[in-house]
Amino acid sequence: MVIVMRRNCPKREIGGVLAALRDRGYEPRVVSAFPRVALGIVEDLDCATVSSLTGWIEPMSGVESVETFDNSWKLAARTYRPSGTTVRIGKVLIGGGRLHVIAGPCAVESRESIMRIARVVLDRGGTLLRGGAFKPRTSPYSFRGLGREGLEYLAEASSETGLPCVTEVLSVEDVDLVAAHADVLQIGARNMQNYTLLEAVGDTDRPVLLKRGMNATVKELLLAAEYILARGNPNVMLCERGIRTFETATRNTLDISAIPLLHELTHLPVVTDPSHATGLRELVTPAALAAVAAGTDALMVEIHTNPSEALSDGRQSLDPDGLGVLVEMAREIHAVVGRMAV
Amino acid sequence: MVIVMRRNCPKREIGGVLAALRDRGYEPRVVSAFPRVALGIVEDLDCATVSSLTGWIEPMSGVESVETFDNSWKLAARTYRPSGTTVRIGKVLIGGGRLHVIAGPCAVESRESIMRIARVVLDRGGTLLRGGAFKPRTSPYSFRGLGREGLEYLAEASSETGLPCVTEVLSVEDVDLVAAHADVLQIGARNMQNYTLLEAVGDTDRPVLLKRGMNATVKELLLAAEYILARGNPNVMLCERGIRTFETATRNTLDISAIPLLHELTHLPVVTDPSHATGLRELVTPAALAAVAAGTDALMVEIHTNPSEALSDGRQSLDPDGLGVLVEMAREIHAVVGRMAV
Amino acid sequence: MVIVMRRNCPKREIGGVLAALRDRGYEPRVVSAFPRVALGIVEDLDCATVSSLTGWIEPMSGVESVETFDNSWKLAARTYRPSGTTVRIGKVLIGGGRLHVIAGPCAVESRESIMRIARVVLDRGGTLLRGGAFKPRTSPYSFRGLGREGLEYLAEASSETGLPCVTEVLSVEDVDLVAAHADVLQIGARNMQNYTLLEAVGDTDRPVLLKRGMNATVKELLLAAEYILARGNPNVMLCERGIRTFETATRNTLDISAIPLLHELTHLPVVTDPSHATGLRELVTPAALAAVAAGTDALMVEIHTNPSEALSDGRQSLDPDGLGVLVEMAREIHAVVGRMAV
Amino acid sequence: MVIVMRRNCPKREIGGVLAALRDRGYEPRVVSAFPRVALGIVEDLDCATVSSLTGWIEPMSGVESVETFDNSWKLAARTYRPSGTTVRIGKVLIGGGRLHVIAGPCAVESRESIMRIARVVLDRGGTLLRGGAFKPRTSPYSFRGLGREGLEYLAEASSETGLPCVTEVLSVEDVDLVAAHADVLQIGARNMQNYTLLEAVGDTDRPVLLKRGMNATVKELLLAAEYILARGNPNVMLCERGIRTFETATRNTLDISAIPLLHELTHLPVVTDPSHATGLRELVTPAALAAVAAGTDALMVEIHTNPSEALSDGRQSLDPDGLGVLVEMAREIHAVVGRMAV
Repeated sequence: MVIVMRRNCPKREIGGVLAALRDRGYEPRVVSAFPRVALGIVEDLDCATVSSLTGWIEPMSGVESVETFDNSWKLAARTYRPSGTTVRIGKVLIGGGRLHVIAGPCAVESRESIMRIARVVLDRGGTLLRGGAFKPRTSPYSFRGLGREGLEYLAEASSETGLPCVTEVLSVEDVDLVAAHADVLQIGARNMQNYTLLEAVGDTDRPVLLKRGMNATVKELLLAAEYILARGNPNVMLCERGIRTFETATRNTLDISAIPLLHELTHLPVVTDPSHATGLRELVTPAALAAVAAGTDALMVEIHTNPSEALSDGRQSLDPDGLGVLVEMAREIHAVVGRMAV
Repeated sequence: MVIVMRRNCPKREIGGVLAALRDRGYEPRVVSAFPRVALGIVEDLDCATVSSLTGWIEPMSGVESVETFDNSWKLAARTYRPSGTTVRIGKVLIGGGRLHVIAGPCAVESRESIMRIARVVLDRGGTLLRGGAFKPRTSPYSFRGLGREGLEYLAEASSETGLPCVTEVLSVEDVDLVAAHADVLQIGARNMQNYTLLEAVGDTDRPVLLKRGMNATVKELLLAAEYILARGNPNVMLCERGIRTFETATRNTLDISAIPLLHELTHLPVVTDPSHATGLRELVTPAALAAVAAGTDALMVEIHTNPSEALSDGRQSLDPDGLGVLVEMAREIHAVVGRMAV
Repeated sequence: MVIVMRRNCPKREIGGVLAALRDRGYEPRVVSAFPRVALGIVEDLDCATVSSLTGWIEPMSGVESVETFDNSWKLAARTYRPSGTTVRIGKVLIGGGRLHVIAGPCAVESRESIMRIARVVLDRGGTLLRGGAFKPRTSPYSFRGLGREGLEYLAEASSETGLPCVTEVLSVEDVDLVAAHADVLQIGARNMQNYTLLEAVGDTDRPVLLKRGMNATVKELLLAAEYILARGNPNVMLCERGIRTFETATRNTLDISAIPLLHELTHLPVVTDPSHATGLRELVTPAALAAVAAGTDALMVEIHTNPSEALSDGRQSLDPDGLGVLVEMAREIHAVVGRMAV
Repeated sequence: MVIVMRRNCPKREIGGVLAALRDRGYEPRVVSAFPRVALGIVEDLDCATVSSLTGWIEPMSGVESVETFDNSWKLAARTYRPSGTTVRIGKVLIGGGRLHVIAGPCAVESRESIMRIARVVLDRGGTLLRGGAFKPRTSPYSFRGLGREGLEYLAEASSETGLPCVTEVLSVEDVDLVAAHADVLQIGARNMQNYTLLEAVGDTDRPVLLKRGMNATVKELLLAAEYILARGNPNVMLCERGIRTFETATRNTLDISAIPLLHELTHLPVVTDPSHATGLRELVTPAALAAVAAGTDALMVEIHTNPSEALSDGRQSLDPDGLGVLVEMAREIHAVVGRMAV
């Protein structure tokens, strides 16, 4: 822990901090010189002590900042499991050098449509089925999904095609219901810091796909994952889906560097959603291939058999042929990248 | 509704969209010329129709975007109640030209400390008491508040001083409990798009303080308010608390222009939180006074009788004298601004 | 200087850095413990040494970052001149507790129009005249100002009304020409990091108004000012004019907290431009008053005698009555704030 | 052109705008209904007329915005040259389906070092040499490059290896000097809107590498290119190099979707700089491969034969072996992507 004093702060303030630390039994050292003095505490401190010390030192006169050079994720850290986590979903394994493609409609619209789309996913090489039954919508007046009925249709399509299915859960009350129908519980971007919900899915043993919030840093994403891991559910996958920036030509800005950065920081598999990241059909395939080249473990893409009639997000959905091309090229690029020593 | 076609898109694509619209009984007009053609639908459409039409037109060949020139908040719109909403909290009225100061600690730490702080708030001119019992924390290992015990201490301090109290509710399960102890239910920035929670507080008759998400646009804030209003609870106050930008010298960037902009767009009162917006004690007072000058209806500030010992956010807490100065100056500035014809 | 090693980095990498530092004559100390080791160099290092050391240590194996706890502005630092700088422009003094209002059109449009507007500025209480002769425009096909002719009209209006004038200089070649006509050289936001231009105005003795870049941090603004100061021109004023964020409801986001933050970090006067920051006439006055409450030394606002006929930026221009109200209220708020011990 | 009136604006304001347009000879049509009325002008208007009309309509009472559904770049638009531009640099052609790798040090440090690095570039499969002689630096006290001497060393290394060279030009005065030594004139991110400099390089016939500003939208990048094209120099390459966002874990955020988006909007070749975009050596290769998968025409990467001794940006430089791996894998991915019908 390093305590940085304000530039040119008076000696008595530096003395005050030193004295207070010594009073509490620490042996602070001065680690940089005037005019910007910094003080170090060498002892290895646990999380709670760091938190308490920081809360107590920061407001002292003359203190500019307290740097702990650490972050509080432990279970999510790469060092916790250097070989990497592989999440098992039925016969499918995510992580460990494979590449998977999760595909399906934004929302489940009817039994027929999800069944038709599921067959397309299977046929074109996708390995998991996605589809929303509970949809978070910015406006209360928008279509919010078929709910329980949608879950049933999704489960049926999943069962018939043998593709494990992924769907979003929006509230604690729905966790059991969704877990009864879906193979993977998705936490959407808007709920990345809904800690009650994170803990509720952490209390299940179901794999969780945790999407990065639109405004969340990579560190905050890892801390959100830590909430789930800390409840005992180790099956967490992280999903980069674009962040909000000043650029409005695309729906969001796909943070492609986050993929290798996450692989460096954590052992959890990394999924990429190029559909929400770009919001424009013609950019989905290049962005998806880029994600594969950057090392993603899986892609999650929106498709529709008739994009122009989709009830939501049709603008960013691929059609069946588009999915086929994407899967094929993604596999070729994965074959190139997979040979790299990561 | 205006449909903008891509630059130089072929005539057959324009014809396709025109034909499809006519098939459905609309009478589209061409409203701008080659090379960037736009088509207009003049009929007054309701929300559901606009949403369905948009979902269906946007994916058609040649379409670049569908502009509706409208937003789907209705109950929150200024035009819905041009004279403005006044929210009653016990004897306190928020809105309608008054200025209130909500003050208290980030977290309720003990019965004694919240009581001591409540007396300071009363003594220095604050009119409501704030204090967190359930704290959302980025890390699962941080102090998360005293919970039910904290609520009881807060209610006791509120009752003894006569200051109505505001506290955050984090989950649907806690809504009744929090409503039983607090006068105002606060929805935090991380939960601004937790729609299940918004609806749960919308189902109560308790005033709600809705904080803007760190990454939320003003329009998204209004749509989040709409979720609460649409459930029948009209007592919503909006809170500007800083947005996330590239600037890291302050904790967030206070979006001062959002205050007058919100007054233009909505009839709901606007509260400003300069403590979380700046994150630095020495900037809290200037930012608070700026908010008053910009027309805020209330300020919400963190104070502590001993900032250097606060369990959380001590770095941004004012001390009692600081609160006194802030209240006094805020009133003087409010007196100047209040005379302006708004 | 503190060198932070990667979490769990092998001991030999830590040893490597220690050895390399000792080879060069430093006596590094270990200042935090495993698993996140940090090393400190206590010696007081000059800028060049810090820069060279950083460039050389950062790429070493195991090093995560090098923290210097310092910034390289010296002449701009508050500590360099704790009492604050007052910039003299003819009879006008900016800084030192006064409040000035710089007003005028976005662009000088004709001799008659700038003369008419200058009289309005004088009449309504403005104390300096602004007007663009060389306009930076995003598109090469937009109106770029009257150039030399515009400068002459501006100088004439300035001379007739006695209001010192401010105008932008876009290139090194024009510095002498602009300095021959204007009292203050403005560096626009797009040129904040045009170092050649900064040095050219630093070589004059003319007061400089340096606008913050749309994407510039407060620290980068101070470093840009340092370029001018380092060439010997001490008459620099900084201008907050809004930064670019995800919010698109306003043209930019006025960073109100930057005003008190700049006063803390630097002795240079701070000017605020609410017109470009908001881009919407109805938000200009509230934003301007907020800036005064936050401690700005001057406001710079766009006005037009007939906003609907302005050749550029008419959407954000106040009319004469609007200017009059703004000046009057700004003075009242300044009177309140001015009594605060800053 | 579509004029959007404010929600619920009074009929007389709508009538006012209609009348004013008719007075000027236009035949406006009402294109959407109450409560949000929009008016359209169907005539095909040239740029100057649009600009003048917009400036004049926007400030009228009741007008919320004027939408032109167009952008003012013409020469840069894909439709201007649908087959795409190929820029010739000596024997090297950029664009047209090839992939090139531009490599070299951040700054030219000495004759020996640039020569040694140039041989590495040639040996490892790079096809152009980069190296800074004039360096823009945030602080006036940082190393700013060797200047003319650096140019000479660069030209010598270029000549000896046969690799065309790219270097930045910072000011109008240096354009001739740099053009006398370098094959490509680079405009840095900080100067993307330095219009004087854009016009100066537009007046040469030398290929220009135009880097996107840290805060620039894709549209602004195209408009900056338009400045160069409009002066008669058609040899412009655009460079995505990361934008500034709230995420601080990487130096910038590489906007990977901008690559296919630019290919859709413009005929100019697109270069990607993963070194500045990420700022971290271990992320450079994944980001570079992602850019190739997304369709970039060239990569520009920083290398150093001894990264730990680089005078600037050593932290993000690859070593020779790293460059070799990158070139080889980039070619393999390019072979996959190149087969896609774009």
